[in-house]
Amino acid sequence: MAGAVAAKAPEFLYNNWYVAGWGADLGPGERIARTFLNQPVVIFRTESGQPSALEDRCCHRALPLSFGTVDGERIRCSYHGLEFNVAGKCEKIPAQDKIPPTACVRHYPLVERDSLLWIWMGDVELANESEIPAHTWHSNSRFKWKSHHFDIQGNWELMIENLMDLSHLPYIHANTIGGNPALHFGVKTNSSREGNLVRVSRYMPNSEPPPTYRAAKNFAGKVDRWQEIEFQPVLIRINTGACDAGTGAYEGPRDHGFSMIGFHGITPETETTTHYFWSVATDAVTEGVPEQIFQQTAETFREDQEVLELQQLRISADPDRPLLDIASDVGSRQARQVLRRLMKAERDPDLVAA
Amino acid sequence: MAGAVAAKAPEFLYNNWYVAGWGADLGPGERIARTFLNQPVVIFRTESGQPSALEDRCCHRALPLSFGTVDGERIRCSYHGLEFNVAGKCEKIPAQDKIPPTACVRHYPLVERDSLLWIWMGDVELANESEIPAHTWHSNSRFKWKSHHFDIQGNWELMIENLMDLSHLPYIHANTIGGNPALHFGVKTNSSREGNLVRVSRYMPNSEPPPTYRAAKNFAGKVDRWQEIEFQPVLIRINTGACDAGTGAYEGPRDHGFSMIGFHGITPETETTTHYFWSVATDAVTEGVPEQIFQQTAETFREDQEVLELQQLRISADPDRPLLDIASDVGSRQARQVLRRLMKAERDPDLVAA
Amino acid sequence: MAGAVAAKAPEFLYNNWYVAGWGADLGPGERIARTFLNQPVVIFRTESGQPSALEDRCCHRALPLSFGTVDGERIRCSYHGLEFNVAGKCEKIPAQDKIPPTACVRHYPLVERDSLLWIWMGDVELANESEIPAHTWHSNSRFKWKSHHFDIQGNWELMIENLMDLSHLPYIHANTIGGNPALHFGVKTNSSREGNLVRVSRYMPNSEPPPTYRAAKNFAGKVDRWQEIEFQPVLIRINTGACDAGTGAYEGPRDHGFSMIGFHGITPETETTTHYFWSVATDAVTEGVPEQIFQQTAETFREDQEVLELQQLRISADPDRPLLDIASDVGSRQARQVLRRLMKAERDPDLVAA
Repeated sequence: MAGAVAAKAPEFLYNNWYVAGWGADLGPGERIARTFLNQPVVIFRTESGQPSALEDRCCHRALPLSFGTVDGERIRCSYHGLEFNVAGKCEKIPAQDKIPPTACVRHYPLVERDSLLWIWMGDVELANESEIPAHTWHSNSRFKWKSHHFDIQGNWELMIENLMDLSHLPYIHANTIGGNPALHFGVKTNSSREGNLVRVSRYMPNSEPPPTYRAAKNFAGKVDRWQEIEFQPVLIRINTGACDAGTGAYEGPRDHGFSMIGFHGITPETETTTHYFWSVATDAVTEGVPEQIFQQTAETFREDQEVLELQQLRISADPDRPLLDIASDVGSRQARQVLRRLMKAERDPDLVAA
Repeated sequence: MAGAVAAKAPEFLYNNWYVAGWGADLGPGERIARTFLNQPVVIFRTESGQPSALEDRCCHRALPLSFGTVDGERIRCSYHGLEFNVAGKCEKIPAQDKIPPTACVRHYPLVERDSLLWIWMGDVELANESEIPAHTWHSNSRFKWKSHHFDIQGNWELMIENLMDLSHLPYIHANTIGGNPALHFGVKTNSSREGNLVRVSRYMPNSEPPPTYRAAKNFAGKVDRWQEIEFQPVLIRINTGACDAGTGAYEGPRDHGFSMIGFHGITPETETTTHYFWSVATDAVTEGVPEQIFQQTAETFREDQEVLELQQLRISADPDRPLLDIASDVGSRQARQVLRRLMKAERDPDLVAA
Repeated sequence: MAGAVAAKAPEFLYNNWYVAGWGADLGPGERIARTFLNQPVVIFRTESGQPSALEDRCCHRALPLSFGTVDGERIRCSYHGLEFNVAGKCEKIPAQDKIPPTACVRHYPLVERDSLLWIWMGDVELANESEIPAHTWHSNSRFKWKSHHFDIQGNWELMIENLMDLSHLPYIHANTIGGNPALHFGVKTNSSREGNLVRVSRYMPNSEPPPTYRAAKNFAGKVDRWQEIEFQPVLIRINTGACDAGTGAYEGPRDHGFSMIGFHGITPETETTTHYFWSVATDAVTEGVPEQIFQQTAETFREDQEVLELQQLRISADPDRPLLDIASDVGSRQARQVLRRLMKAERDPDLVAA
């Protein structure tokens, strides 16, 4: 695999667990066609419930297996009836008795965890399920959450940049969650890196709660607010919220406050398109409040999508032209450095050992 | 011409009669724009009734002649009024008296026969009308028939493969003409080659007639069924039907039985798109029966079209990747060998002599 | 700049004033995104009324500035709030105090004159406002005029060819302004060149006024008609009209007759698409007459657009294939020679000096 990657342009990180979908969107006997890292994949769930990911191209005449049907524990190609098991091995060719060992399609490790389907697009030997990032908010009964899947016509790294630098809020989201630019730029941004994790945080102690916060929670007066962003390849978590001022928001548990946990799974589809699997969870569960948060968040992310797609138009027209970094890019620059280092190591295995 | 072909990718067989359309679709004074083997062609019929095929690009300023009008025995370009005769020679330039000999567009031999328009896209010197395949069912008064033209977003050889291997019937056409897989795979398939002809046949003696057969003909009981496929570059005939068991279906005339004759003219438009000119003729002419057959057949072929177009998506994404042959591919493999040999000979004239 | 041009294909003339739009379409605080010569440009007008043209790509993250907003005398990027003045200099970066000198976008000279916005896409050092062509009919109170902007899916030189050779009138415009072919071809066409100007004229003394002329003006009987076409890089003026026969149409002022002045600004968008900014002015100002002229002209030009777009299809399919010139091409051939000489000189500065 590493060799195959080296021959291609260094556009993707292959040896990595990526979000491939939401488990709830794939019922028993169902299948979904999706492209990840330029490779067409069929994700299906057998009738007994096991999810699997195979190359979406029958080895016989290249028909997408996603055009076929799940039958028991196999997926059957709709053209001449070849049947493949969850490991991609052909177990039936209707017109003949003997099945050659070459009758198989590529299998991608797929794991269901925390309501998410995680796929490994790289060297199968290196796939280690224990490295799959946990996201326990999806099973935390104190929270309500909702998931989405956006198809973005833009490169995956643009999505990372967008989320790592929230200084765009007062401009892109002026009509939704943005608010006053002065407020946003008056707060110090902290940034740190630890291995492949990058953290960016901003704290607004003893500040006025914004209208959406008031609507979600009955605050006594001023609040201690936080915005905490955490990147790892290739997802981002954004934890925002507030507690009544002086009640320990920055030291310990925040259960008495208001939290929103954004999960952002960023999976390249092609060099210029991206699967954006996101959820938002909140502990403000008063009737009507979560629904309002979910809806506002979706509107906000559609605004981001529009920006990313316009950026991509300009970048595709002149891909090698340099861009200017500004002060607020510190977080996205660190995330990009993590990715560049991992991608370089992947293409040159000697660097991995070193 | 052979030299010009050699410089291109070996994607097409040029020196061959192809179906260009149905004669009935081209009335006197009418013209149709179509691309064959990557070359834009205007087919028109003069007011006296003669069909002609010219390059669809005026030699003056490249406007498609198909945008122009047929006037008497000529086609006139709509931009500056140049007029071309059926041989592609310019016979009028409004603004000047002298017409230079270079004022002409390429002419393609075009012959109308058996209700079909046949075009020769290769070396004009090699065009021989006597080699045009006959299809007499179109003028056989015992038969009723109907013609169609489908535009397929798939390579022409995929269409051949589809028709040469009917083992796909129980899968693609499960809801139309497919039926039980076991029935289809229990029958021996015979295959043979004779020059550039490839024949595949399957016989089901003393078998139950399927529902569509019963509807078409008043069979006494069991029947002797046949499926006979014949390929030649580049068309396929499929003769299917049945006679009452033991009444000579496999030896002699089948006039007392039920026959359907499919004609499949397969003409490349580009490397990835195909003109599919097909007809189906039947001798079951009881009122309502032919119409039902025509409609069912069209539905069935639309199912094939969908498959071909999905195959093409995967093949275009990775054109050089090999595919796996299975037992039922014997007929299509032979057809492909015939084509490969002819295409190779066309590009290397020394091989033609040998 | 000259060096940058030389590295590209010689598709455009860069050092030239091009029409970029109509001044009336750009109100204070408004902005328009347009591509000229393959370069994305935002044209905006500040709140005080000054028009400006900048590269439509923020230097920070490549978002089109046309997605942003005009605020006072600046345009602000909608992503992170960078603000640029009319010269393309960044004057504000919200998240930081210091603005690096590299924080700027390319500025294109833009001048508003005769109701037109003129842009210079080439070497800024060579831009000379005194070379902007005048078009005084837009401010002549004897005339009424109307402007349009068509997006043509065809190369800019096809547009020039179309307008320099009106022998296409009886064919393309048979149903609008065309009329009898014999009439058009019975008139001698004069052509001359003077520096970068090319003039084509046709005179029809003592001829019957066509119906549209009669409708516009109360002619006594026969008229002296004229058709005068003038090309300069890269616009064309077409002056057509008539006076009562023998009243001096060919010698002096034509104020007593009927005139239509067509202005045709031809600005390449890409190699295969063109901005066509045109107006038509007339001194036949009786109520209802100008409106009818404007409408007929627009219909006529839509017919030309259809032709150009079909030509482009064929030319794109085989761009290097030669085309045949005919007698009526004399004017367009001269215009092409002017352009070829200027484009060659631009790419090889030594030729400019010579």
